[in-house]
Amino acid sequence: MNRDIYQEPLVSRYTSRDMQELFSEKTKFTNWRKCWVALAEAQFELGLTDIITQEMLDEMNANVHNIDFDVAAAKEKEIRHDVMAHVFEFGSKCPKAEGIIHLGATSQFVVCNTDLLIQKQALDLIRKGVLKVISNLAKFCLEHKNLPTLGFTHYQPAQPTTVGKRNTLYIQDLVMDLEYIDTFFDQIKARGAKGTVGTQATFIELFHGDNEKVRQLDTLVSKKLGFDKVFAVTGQTYPRKLDMKLAETLAGIGASAHKFAVDMRLLSNLKVQEEPFAKNQTGSSAMAYKRNPMRSERLTGLSRKLMGLPADFAATFSNQWFERTLDDSAIRRMDIPQAFLLTDAILKLYVNITSQMVVFPKQIERHLRMELPFMSTEKILMEAVEKGESRQEMHEVIKEHSLAAGRVVKEEGLDNDLLERLAQDDRIPFTLDDLMGLVGDYTQFTGRASAQTDEYIREVVVPLLAAREHQMGEVDSSLSV
Amino acid sequence: MNRDIYQEPLVSRYTSRDMQELFSEKTKFTNWRKCWVALAEAQFELGLTDIITQEMLDEMNANVHNIDFDVAAAKEKEIRHDVMAHVFEFGSKCPKAEGIIHLGATSQFVVCNTDLLIQKQALDLIRKGVLKVISNLAKFCLEHKNLPTLGFTHYQPAQPTTVGKRNTLYIQDLVMDLEYIDTFFDQIKARGAKGTVGTQATFIELFHGDNEKVRQLDTLVSKKLGFDKVFAVTGQTYPRKLDMKLAETLAGIGASAHKFAVDMRLLSNLKVQEEPFAKNQTGSSAMAYKRNPMRSERLTGLSRKLMGLPADFAATFSNQWFERTLDDSAIRRMDIPQAFLLTDAILKLYVNITSQMVVFPKQIERHLRMELPFMSTEKILMEAVEKGESRQEMHEVIKEHSLAAGRVVKEEGLDNDLLERLAQDDRIPFTLDDLMGLVGDYTQFTGRASAQTDEYIREVVVPLLAAREHQMGEVDSSLSV
Amino acid sequence: MNRDIYQEPLVSRYTSRDMQELFSEKTKFTNWRKCWVALAEAQFELGLTDIITQEMLDEMNANVHNIDFDVAAAKEKEIRHDVMAHVFEFGSKCPKAEGIIHLGATSQFVVCNTDLLIQKQALDLIRKGVLKVISNLAKFCLEHKNLPTLGFTHYQPAQPTTVGKRNTLYIQDLVMDLEYIDTFFDQIKARGAKGTVGTQATFIELFHGDNEKVRQLDTLVSKKLGFDKVFAVTGQTYPRKLDMKLAETLAGIGASAHKFAVDMRLLSNLKVQEEPFAKNQTGSSAMAYKRNPMRSERLTGLSRKLMGLPADFAATFSNQWFERTLDDSAIRRMDIPQAFLLTDAILKLYVNITSQMVVFPKQIERHLRMELPFMSTEKILMEAVEKGESRQEMHEVIKEHSLAAGRVVKEEGLDNDLLERLAQDDRIPFTLDDLMGLVGDYTQFTGRASAQTDEYIREVVVPLLAAREHQMGEVDSSLSV
Amino acid sequence: MNRDIYQEPLVSRYTSRDMQELFSEKTKFTNWRKCWVALAEAQFELGLTDIITQEMLDEMNANVHNIDFDVAAAKEKEIRHDVMAHVFEFGSKCPKAEGIIHLGATSQFVVCNTDLLIQKQALDLIRKGVLKVISNLAKFCLEHKNLPTLGFTHYQPAQPTTVGKRNTLYIQDLVMDLEYIDTFFDQIKARGAKGTVGTQATFIELFHGDNEKVRQLDTLVSKKLGFDKVFAVTGQTYPRKLDMKLAETLAGIGASAHKFAVDMRLLSNLKVQEEPFAKNQTGSSAMAYKRNPMRSERLTGLSRKLMGLPADFAATFSNQWFERTLDDSAIRRMDIPQAFLLTDAILKLYVNITSQMVVFPKQIERHLRMELPFMSTEKILMEAVEKGESRQEMHEVIKEHSLAAGRVVKEEGLDNDLLERLAQDDRIPFTLDDLMGLVGDYTQFTGRASAQTDEYIREVVVPLLAAREHQMGEVDSSLSV
Repeated sequence: MNRDIYQEPLVSRYTSRDMQELFSEKTKFTNWRKCWVALAEAQFELGLTDIITQEMLDEMNANVHNIDFDVAAAKEKEIRHDVMAHVFEFGSKCPKAEGIIHLGATSQFVVCNTDLLIQKQALDLIRKGVLKVISNLAKFCLEHKNLPTLGFTHYQPAQPTTVGKRNTLYIQDLVMDLEYIDTFFDQIKARGAKGTVGTQATFIELFHGDNEKVRQLDTLVSKKLGFDKVFAVTGQTYPRKLDMKLAETLAGIGASAHKFAVDMRLLSNLKVQEEPFAKNQTGSSAMAYKRNPMRSERLTGLSRKLMGLPADFAATFSNQWFERTLDDSAIRRMDIPQAFLLTDAILKLYVNITSQMVVFPKQIERHLRMELPFMSTEKILMEAVEKGESRQEMHEVIKEHSLAAGRVVKEEGLDNDLLERLAQDDRIPFTLDDLMGLVGDYTQFTGRASAQTDEYIREVVVPLLAAREHQMGEVDSSLSV
Repeated sequence: MNRDIYQEPLVSRYTSRDMQELFSEKTKFTNWRKCWVALAEAQFELGLTDIITQEMLDEMNANVHNIDFDVAAAKEKEIRHDVMAHVFEFGSKCPKAEGIIHLGATSQFVVCNTDLLIQKQALDLIRKGVLKVISNLAKFCLEHKNLPTLGFTHYQPAQPTTVGKRNTLYIQDLVMDLEYIDTFFDQIKARGAKGTVGTQATFIELFHGDNEKVRQLDTLVSKKLGFDKVFAVTGQTYPRKLDMKLAETLAGIGASAHKFAVDMRLLSNLKVQEEPFAKNQTGSSAMAYKRNPMRSERLTGLSRKLMGLPADFAATFSNQWFERTLDDSAIRRMDIPQAFLLTDAILKLYVNITSQMVVFPKQIERHLRMELPFMSTEKILMEAVEKGESRQEMHEVIKEHSLAAGRVVKEEGLDNDLLERLAQDDRIPFTLDDLMGLVGDYTQFTGRASAQTDEYIREVVVPLLAAREHQMGEVDSSLSV
Repeated sequence: MNRDIYQEPLVSRYTSRDMQELFSEKTKFTNWRKCWVALAEAQFELGLTDIITQEMLDEMNANVHNIDFDVAAAKEKEIRHDVMAHVFEFGSKCPKAEGIIHLGATSQFVVCNTDLLIQKQALDLIRKGVLKVISNLAKFCLEHKNLPTLGFTHYQPAQPTTVGKRNTLYIQDLVMDLEYIDTFFDQIKARGAKGTVGTQATFIELFHGDNEKVRQLDTLVSKKLGFDKVFAVTGQTYPRKLDMKLAETLAGIGASAHKFAVDMRLLSNLKVQEEPFAKNQTGSSAMAYKRNPMRSERLTGLSRKLMGLPADFAATFSNQWFERTLDDSAIRRMDIPQAFLLTDAILKLYVNITSQMVVFPKQIERHLRMELPFMSTEKILMEAVEKGESRQEMHEVIKEHSLAAGRVVKEEGLDNDLLERLAQDDRIPFTLDDLMGLVGDYTQFTGRASAQTDEYIREVVVPLLAAREHQMGEVDSSLSV
Repeated sequence: MNRDIYQEPLVSRYTSRDMQELFSEKTKFTNWRKCWVALAEAQFELGLTDIITQEMLDEMNANVHNIDFDVAAAKEKEIRHDVMAHVFEFGSKCPKAEGIIHLGATSQFVVCNTDLLIQKQALDLIRKGVLKVISNLAKFCLEHKNLPTLGFTHYQPAQPTTVGKRNTLYIQDLVMDLEYIDTFFDQIKARGAKGTVGTQATFIELFHGDNEKVRQLDTLVSKKLGFDKVFAVTGQTYPRKLDMKLAETLAGIGASAHKFAVDMRLLSNLKVQEEPFAKNQTGSSAMAYKRNPMRSERLTGLSRKLMGLPADFAATFSNQWFERTLDDSAIRRMDIPQAFLLTDAILKLYVNITSQMVVFPKQIERHLRMELPFMSTEKILMEAVEKGESRQEMHEVIKEHSLAAGRVVKEEGLDNDLLERLAQDDRIPFTLDDLMGLVGDYTQFTGRASAQTDEYIREVVVPLLAAREHQMGEVDSSLSV
């Protein structure tokens, strides 16, 4: 690492090697060569056999990975054109094919198609990460589907839910992301062989005006590169609108992760649910017992940055003039890798946290105990009415004591004494024991939380993971700093 | 119009009455009643016949549109709770059903489901507008598929394309928007009957713990409201992630329109293609002949604002704490109508402009004439080589004259004289007539532009419009200011 | 209120009448007339006495507020030009001056100068609100400068601070906003009398080439309108860069308010500090005791929207072509009022909340009690070493018990028993009473929190408020919904 | 350069070495040491002479630049705490001072103060760049102050302005940026010596409760580090609101540059004004004569990205909880360097372009010639009326021919023939020669454009540059790719 100049922290601190490699020069230039091979093969197969020979194709195929980067870089410095520099370097490795490399193509033929190829691979990695998080969370939900916990609205205690149920909501957000990834895969198409302004003019010349052949060329090249679809029409590049959708798709994952991470930071304060804590990790030098939710905090910050990117892409797309302007170049060069690297970093963390979350049932119970009396007032009221008391009067009495108990907690810093107050009030026809019995356990207040969790995991998540098993795999969730 | 206080220009100037009505109090409160009717009917059908009777249902159904807004408003002022105020007002119209309106429900039952219902209707309107623009543009593309025009990269003349072909690119962007609208329709689901924190606790009490019945209630209510799907799990509200996707879907349309509108403003300067111009519209008081592209400018500005909204929704979703916090309320109350109204205004304009765009073939030709000599140099080179000249020498000679001709245009403000220069140079084996003959017409440089246009419209757009005929209809494209 | 169409909630729910009026048609058109009067007066004073008479000026002055809006609106509909329609209507009231109204001016003369005048007045209102919040908070800080409370880093308990000290941070943020308001006031300048593209060409004709007179006209008109500076150069409009700075200035206030409001929502959960609660406000129908921080939640949402606006202005400014394009019109028409109205709504709420915040010392103490043992470990260690124990051994023993006590709280849901544990450990040379004595009270851990508060309020805030007394005044902080 | 993994293009392609170094580890860690030295010196001077000796200070001062980065890195890996790792490494170089390094401080003492120091230096660099651009543009304005050129509103020809005058507008935008840089310098203050939650608790212990001494420590340390002000109150870090203002200040420069660059790209299409063009630069392989405005396009893209950053900072600031949360860490680590590097890249380009802009007077004249007849209609009208013709009739006749001439240009692609048309119309009392004489030259239509330019440069810009001579210096404006 060079300590004399700035180092991009996404690479030096947060992301997986796999993603870093996808956006390397090596990957880019190798894919350029694959584009040139595909083009030459397609041209050959469609009849340009007077210009292109099988021998040339063999030579090109044999040298896809045989790149002398320094030679190409020196050439680029000289002629100030990266694509032509690599045409030159490839040509020097393929003396026979030299004259037909890039035949009829414009720079964006290799640049755009390569961008799209890399995006597809990068998105495969991302999807793997999303699926891993879903799988982690699903396991966690089932484990804790029955554990009652205080639900919050306005970040004030509301009715209880269960730990498992709450966590299904994070899954559901990610499932939506997954479906938008699918949609994006459906939208991504090869840029194909379209020419300078998208008219395929040079190819039409090459094929002596044979409209059908040139149309087939577009499809055939794309197919060889692994695309099942090709944009019907383009300007010089593939439509930058696709980039906008890409950024939104990735930012969606960031937003889902952010929602989760903020909840985790609040849960950590409540001592209810915590991210895993490394053995030798110390909270702070002074306060060894501190459990700072640093991973969730980092997850929040990275997600925030990711969510800031789609606006760039919208502006770039919507300000492209005519067949293309080059104000897209520098910003895409930064923002596309950045969007993927951020999502990669986010998913590494999200997988890491969800793989070993800790729950503190006793602390959860403590919170519930504080609020349970309030929650049970409706039940007490109903039972009192059944016993013949006036609904109106009971409502007033209970409300009076509720407000007083609320004050005791806040103003005196003491425990909730509502049940004691009610028991001591002669108008209430119950003893403290009666009331404790009535209140019962928390589970009764959680409605269908457990059942919903079960249904959601078994009916939605399990089949989803099964159907996508081929999209899953190992995910690097190590933390380097 | 009240001139003493601020008036929202989206309403007073830019949008259609249909869209304004969708986001009115009337529409909102009427839909709340539909939600209450659906709930009561479903509860009745699922067996709560001891509490709910057919008579009550009839009464409720008869009074869905019978709202006394002033009574409800007065009640709201008193109890500071809009939902309860409308429960009261509905109850006063339905004395028999009074006790069972909103039975077991929380406010978000009516609020969320109504929001979703309105969004669906609003999105229907939007889709109608998108389809109308596509249809307008398709007609225009076919008309002008053969008209060569200068293509631009870097906003510098590049190879020619055709007017029709260029305009297919705007269609393709909108088709992507359309597919994202479809995806969104696929994601939108009822919030259903879920209760305060999403656990359905009150409904479980109401149905005495009958898990299956409560599950059916959720689905049945949603079906009655016209939803074919219901969110499996929710907190207090439907997931705000859906709002983020909604905003992105609409902003996509804004971005597509923006790209088009900026091109139109450039084309207007080039005097190549213009938005329609009202008969009595004057360019400016001083300069009557001026043709200011005011609609396209407005389209640009409105689209820019729309593209600014998704970030709000991302922030709101990603900062929702636990089962729900109310920091979503004020911003959604503004941003959801605003996003739809902006899209509506944009589509009104986009339909208006595309219904009568003007093209100036002579002016187009003038531009082509200026650039054609440059474009034909490759052809001249090839022909000279065929005649036995040295490729190397010819290349140098042509380049030398090209640069000189470029200078003449820019530095002397004269017409492109490249062909004359070449004709006068003895090294070039062609007369001016030969060269004019060689250069020929522009069409030969447009490659497959015309064919692509034809293919795209006939193979993609026509079938698409046919398949979506039921989604189409009249669109208000009048301009009020 | 029209219930059939959309109503902008900023007006119907959140903002002050004063701000609503500033962005009304009435204010706008009245200011247009003031611009025309200023122009005519300046022209007269600079020597155009052959064209303009004192009588005309008197007539114009007498009719500034005498606007028949309906006549103007009808005229606008006819000629589709708002400025000319109002020239006409003003002229009909001023038959003598008719011919010289708007003499030599272009529409943006009245439009831009009026915009700037209104912005200045609106910013005065905003500043008044900011000062009121600062004043409220300062009072609160002094009251609670000595009250120790748990400080949080990572939202985990850290060292204590005081309630007053924490609240000084919100003031400091607002003071920065105030200084940026000052900077903006310093940047705002009249657009003056500049002509169609900013060259003052028509005025040069009017003054027969008298360069100096035309220069004076620019300054004199601006001075008459109350500006002390005028933009030296402009295109057709004042530089849109100023709008970007305006939006940032206002968004800064939103960001400060957001930081405060989020803290309030957390404090409300902690039962430490609360927003005021209306007497008859009920937490929720089911749970009467609930204290939902609804104002702070609303403050968060409104601020979020406000923070979303500067990007619009940056895009508009940076995409203005040459002397002006009209893609700024619709978006400015919406975004400038929206930015001011949002800030107004935010400050109404911020003033409202800070005027009666509630603090719960007992609950604060409860939190401190839980954490104090941890915080005192360093002191215990030092005292033990003084008594001759090995530092190394004591550190280990204390750490061991700290971790155990942490586990007790989280895993068993019980109170912090660290001191009890230490007292029972023979290696520790202190009894429980000794330890309690050592730990002492919380104040000793708050360092200079109280002193800082005092210094900050007395040395910074008090002088600031004194120096700005003339900028202060009543602020509407009522809540309508 | 590592070709196997992603390389940040801001570093590898666009920015100056100076800026890259400012955000290096070397600069950061060296500044940390300066903070430790300043702290120890101040503690010593304020009386902690029993703990700290002059010898220790000498030792520390001697080793500020003597950093063994690998040792520190290894230590960090072990203890997972970067600040403590560098305390250790510094201590190993300063065996005498080892025990008093970082005495009483928390990590943010070195981290925040260093951040602020680097920001100040980086902003000095930025200001130098802004001044250089202003200086370049001022020279250009004076050179071309008299050159008439077509002004545009709606990107349609309006009245003429001059080339110099138009370019003053870009200067004025940058002057506003400069003033906001000044304002920011005024806001930037040391974080000083504040402790974990800002209460200075550890320092109060160190100075045995001496309030005044601890207050002086804060100021003295800051002064030693080169700050003339220190934040009166802080949480754990300096207020993140400052970051928001930093980002806005830098983004302002981006927006100004963007406005300029877009105009340049349009001017380039008009062949009116061009960015410099490298000798050996070829337009494109196929079209050698092409003059693609690649620098302006890149300037647009980089500026767009920069303008996207302030929203990140607003979100980070406004979501900081209490005394600090760590969700600011990762995003600031990326966004602060990124904002500075982008601004640096933008200014490199902006300086580069403005140092050698090319103007094409003949092409400008050609545009004017096309529009001049329209512009002169008012004058012709006035002269005809002077000759006794009816104003009403003349207006009609001229308008009729204006519209016809407009049609000729657009619909027939021919030159503007308005004067010929008027000359041939018997109702017009002028010959073609008369009309040509009347129309005269373009300069008469440019009003005070030249005078304004002169005044603006001499009265505003020249004094500004003179007053800031000490802030100026060489700026790297080389282009690497």
